[in-house]
Amino acid sequence: MVGPMEGRGPFGAEFDWIMEDYLFGEETWEGSESKMLRETVRLAAGKAGLGEGDLDVIIAGELLNHLTASSKAAREISIPYLGIYGACSTMAEGSILGAMLVDGQYFEQVAVGAVSHHHTGERGPASPAALRHRAQPGAQWTVTGAGALVLTNDGKGPCITSATVGRVVYPDEEEADNAGTAMAPAALDTLLTHLQDTGKKPEDYDVIITGDLGKIGTALFREKCAAAGLDVASRHADCGVAIYDPSQNVNAGGRGCGSSAAMLCGPFLNRMAAGHLNRLLVIGTGALTSSRQLGEEIYMSIAHAVAIEA
Amino acid sequence: MVGPMEGRGPFGAEFDWIMEDYLFGEETWEGSESKMLRETVRLAAGKAGLGEGDLDVIIAGELLNHLTASSKAAREISIPYLGIYGACSTMAEGSILGAMLVDGQYFEQVAVGAVSHHHTGERGPASPAALRHRAQPGAQWTVTGAGALVLTNDGKGPCITSATVGRVVYPDEEEADNAGTAMAPAALDTLLTHLQDTGKKPEDYDVIITGDLGKIGTALFREKCAAAGLDVASRHADCGVAIYDPSQNVNAGGRGCGSSAAMLCGPFLNRMAAGHLNRLLVIGTGALTSSRQLGEEIYMSIAHAVAIEA
Repeated sequence: MVGPMEGRGPFGAEFDWIMEDYLFGEETWEGSESKMLRETVRLAAGKAGLGEGDLDVIIAGELLNHLTASSKAAREISIPYLGIYGACSTMAEGSILGAMLVDGQYFEQVAVGAVSHHHTGERGPASPAALRHRAQPGAQWTVTGAGALVLTNDGKGPCITSATVGRVVYPDEEEADNAGTAMAPAALDTLLTHLQDTGKKPEDYDVIITGDLGKIGTALFREKCAAAGLDVASRHADCGVAIYDPSQNVNAGGRGCGSSAAMLCGPFLNRMAAGHLNRLLVIGTGALTSSRQLGEEIYMSIAHAVAIEA
Repeated sequence: MVGPMEGRGPFGAEFDWIMEDYLFGEETWEGSESKMLRETVRLAAGKAGLGEGDLDVIIAGELLNHLTASSKAAREISIPYLGIYGACSTMAEGSILGAMLVDGQYFEQVAVGAVSHHHTGERGPASPAALRHRAQPGAQWTVTGAGALVLTNDGKGPCITSATVGRVVYPDEEEADNAGTAMAPAALDTLLTHLQDTGKKPEDYDVIITGDLGKIGTALFREKCAAAGLDVASRHADCGVAIYDPSQNVNAGGRGCGSSAAMLCGPFLNRMAAGHLNRLLVIGTGALTSSRQLGEEIYMSIAHAVAIEA
């Protein structure tokens, strides 16, 4: 599910649900964000042939303080709930946890979801950079979007085949003048660990997608990969860059949990289902903006990688 | 690890580390909170005969927005990190996730931690009730405390034998005049599910501990258990009540992630290690205070249960 602006982007036709307005029938943007997550989980459950009551547990998160939207969505769906926080890497974090909980046979049907909303993201403490530096080329636009997966052991559909939990990385000061460039070293760190742990090469994936590096972060990520001897540029797409058309005036592109959640669960998995894509590596990227609360000038970041195969 | 005030409480002698002051050598309370978590994880790793670099992953959370303290602690320990948010139920949520990740053989050594700090908790948006209603008998005092567990498959030490992931519960309006009473229905809901799923009775546990219901929430929880035909009162302890002496002027008792984290990892597990306690059920309780962001008057809540046996 995406908002009106994302619906006018290059992938607009490939999302299941485009909201007509930002309030989505609710009284507040926070209420709208919660409803987005709830409806996305319901939609995913329906596609898996399940009612929401058939789900064993929901793992979800967002950027709002204290997981306002996820908690309310979980209350309304009324099933066991595990709240997570990985900033914009939340969808990847949840997918990793969910895959282990299903594969280990602790739960049979696990829903994983993540959401962001432009109007809560741009006024909240998560985006001081967005507020202060709107005119700067590195600024990114919070995506209004949600995505949900239902993970089961039924052997149907795409499969999470491996994953890498990332560590928190503190970027070099001269490189981290915006969230996108601050996240590039975390994306590289996790990619290198993933390739080392699995013995794979970038060429083993049809596409490697990052969550929300944006244009400037993407350039830095590709440069760092090339310096590490990795052929990534030819098979890399950044969700935050891809979701908007250059004419949409979003500076460096999109950001937010909904960026990778909506692009993964919509366009990318649709293409896998249609047979156009077989091996996908999702690197969810998160700028841990709370660095600012600690009096630090630049963002620490994290990235988690999830391999999905047809 | 606990703060100076908790060190003067009835269990003071049973914690591993009592801080001399609230800044703990840092420049900010947030920095102090992060250091508490980091040092507690290091202490737990050391007790397990491990260096921090031997840990495969850390699962941690707190009440600070965007997991400021946990993210920084994870950066400094520099191992893979999964951030979680369960309000004051965070230690239980992390323990459940960690147990599955180890039991399923996805990781060998998992650290789980949670922290709260009085001075960040009482000024943050997580405690509007504490700020506004300090003089009310239902008000609770944010515990300065941290706890960490190292979970492994080595067969030594206490074992997590079963667990129940809770769902978000919205209390009856007339019962929820403070966070403690708002959490009581969630604690009951999870206890009932746990007993039903496992076929156990309260008598199968030596002690059932709740996280931070406080005095008034505890009374309501026991009343609800009795009404449901459960003999809980004789074997129930609430960490938020237990951690302070009545003379310490904390109204209804303690609250915060550190309440159950410090009491579980200190006094309760020490007693299990000493052979005085064999079967423990921890019900981590969390008031999802973000209800306020949604314009709601009372807290939605969640509780997760973890059974630990000697």
